Amino acid sequence: MKIVSYRTAEQGPWRAGILRRERVVDIASAIEGASADIQELLDQWERWQEPLQQLSAREADGEESYPLAEVTLGSPVPRPRSFRDFYAFEAHVKTARARRGLPMVPEWYHFPVFYFSNPAAFLGHKASVKKPKAAQWLDYELEIACIIGREGVDIPVEQADAYIAGYCILNDWSARDLQREEVKVGLGPAKGKDFATSMGPWMVTPDELADIEIPGAEGARYPLAMVARVNGIELSRGSLQDIHYTFAQMIARASADCPLYPGDVIGSGTVGTGCILELGTERHRWLEPGDVVELEVERLGVLQNIISE
Amino acid sequence: MKIVSYRTAEQGPWRAGILRRERVVDIASAIEGASADIQELLDQWERWQEPLQQLSAREADGEESYPLAEVTLGSPVPRPRSFRDFYAFEAHVKTARARRGLPMVPEWYHFPVFYFSNPAAFLGHKASVKKPKAAQWLDYELEIACIIGREGVDIPVEQADAYIAGYCILNDWSARDLQREEVKVGLGPAKGKDFATSMGPWMVTPDELADIEIPGAEGARYPLAMVARVNGIELSRGSLQDIHYTFAQMIARASADCPLYPGDVIGSGTVGTGCILELGTERHRWLEPGDVVELEVERLGVLQNIISE
Repeated sequence: MKIVSYRTAEQGPWRAGILRRERVVDIASAIEGASADIQELLDQWERWQEPLQQLSAREADGEESYPLAEVTLGSPVPRPRSFRDFYAFEAHVKTARARRGLPMVPEWYHFPVFYFSNPAAFLGHKASVKKPKAAQWLDYELEIACIIGREGVDIPVEQADAYIAGYCILNDWSARDLQREEVKVGLGPAKGKDFATSMGPWMVTPDELADIEIPGAEGARYPLAMVARVNGIELSRGSLQDIHYTFAQMIARASADCPLYPGDVIGSGTVGTGCILELGTERHRWLEPGDVVELEVERLGVLQNIISE
Repeated sequence: MKIVSYRTAEQGPWRAGILRRERVVDIASAIEGASADIQELLDQWERWQEPLQQLSAREADGEESYPLAEVTLGSPVPRPRSFRDFYAFEAHVKTARARRGLPMVPEWYHFPVFYFSNPAAFLGHKASVKKPKAAQWLDYELEIACIIGREGVDIPVEQADAYIAGYCILNDWSARDLQREEVKVGLGPAKGKDFATSMGPWMVTPDELADIEIPGAEGARYPLAMVARVNGIELSRGSLQDIHYTFAQMIARASADCPLYPGDVIGSGTVGTGCILELGTERHRWLEPGDVVELEVERLGVLQNIISE
């Protein structure tokens, strides 16, 4: 099934919905006792998963619903409990480091590495992304995220996939000039990444990917094509199958001696070719106000955002 | 005034209280309409500040209260909205880098740098800190944090102090062996810091520091002595006055193109001499289960934690 956060007015709280045949069905009004807040549903994901699947599968039965085209979508989790972004695609790490004149680091092969980023700047599909005033080198990053649906600590890699409530496309917007300066100090990226992260257009639950799952001792892999377009022109293309560390390995790493909670978001890191930093500005200039960036991932949809002043 | 999060039972939610002459006064039962949740009070800090000051100043008037020694204290904000930790003391940065064989970076003098860390692992005074299983080099970090009490973006440095609800002592527990490996990849510290942050024992509002404030164009400075002891032996000593970047400068930096919200926590970074990494293991071995670590800051109190297996 596909879960959205939506609203029908300009302002007001995001409500959890199910996407069913191009309509958004309001969860709280369709299922007795269910919250309109996706975080509260995730907090009791084992309880709500089944009734939500039933709602998703059944024919329309007079539930409160809206045509998809008429609602505004937020980030499926509007305000994640925490946001960890990994660095799990080898090609991206190699190329992005080479562009900064840095060699590949052996430690990258020893364990999956992540940084914490801002959980308070999540945007949804079609939201405009404000170019930071201090930045000239604005970039997108083509990623996939998983959303945690179950609390756990020291989660073994072979059990980790069971902690995933679903997957989304994620765009980890980056101000490369700010990032380049601050990382020299050794604390990683912060102002280069804190202004916006977009996620969506919806959360797709793992059952929708079951038929193409490639199981493995290190967790599931999925051959999902990943594409980025700027103003309609394809710039990036890769596959989730090329990921070096699986989401299961990332969850095992993140949860070592540190509890994960429902609503935590874990990003994959950028797929190879998945940002202008990698492609080089000879291929495409940095982003500017008015640019439309579309990330498309097979089965997960299209996440579109426009850059604003 | 001094604000605590406390509970009287082993489990259950933390409740907001005021420390008044060695007793914790329950805020929600003393002030009509006030929430027991510190986050909700911070969300409307302008509304609650005044009645809380009155409650703090007045004589006992039959309010629900408990002797301080009989309650359990949590982190004053048990679950911050977000946690940014800066690197604002020059001596710490110089020495800690030198210990890793790294020279001082010129960029450090250009702007205050921070990293995001885990907002879901905050502990209070007297909580035990579990040594990560994968870590051998466990360290404390002697810091001060401010807690944001007002939403804002692009906050000018000369207005930034007005966004601070209060100050706490902060211990940014660090696994130096994990940190040393992961930072080589360039994303900063994550597993080296994610397992625990302790904060407390209470939040002290700025009015309690007004008489010693050193005003300046870059925001307030305070000559507060900072001390760390391990098992009763003093290892670290410094002063908040030695900070290179003020909290106002950190807030201006953090809020550039990125809103801050009530309940966000901003750490100062470690004061010079404020961790074993700086002192060297010839001065003191890494921390081990059973060690008692006390951070003391003038006017802010003593934050004590014990290392557990």
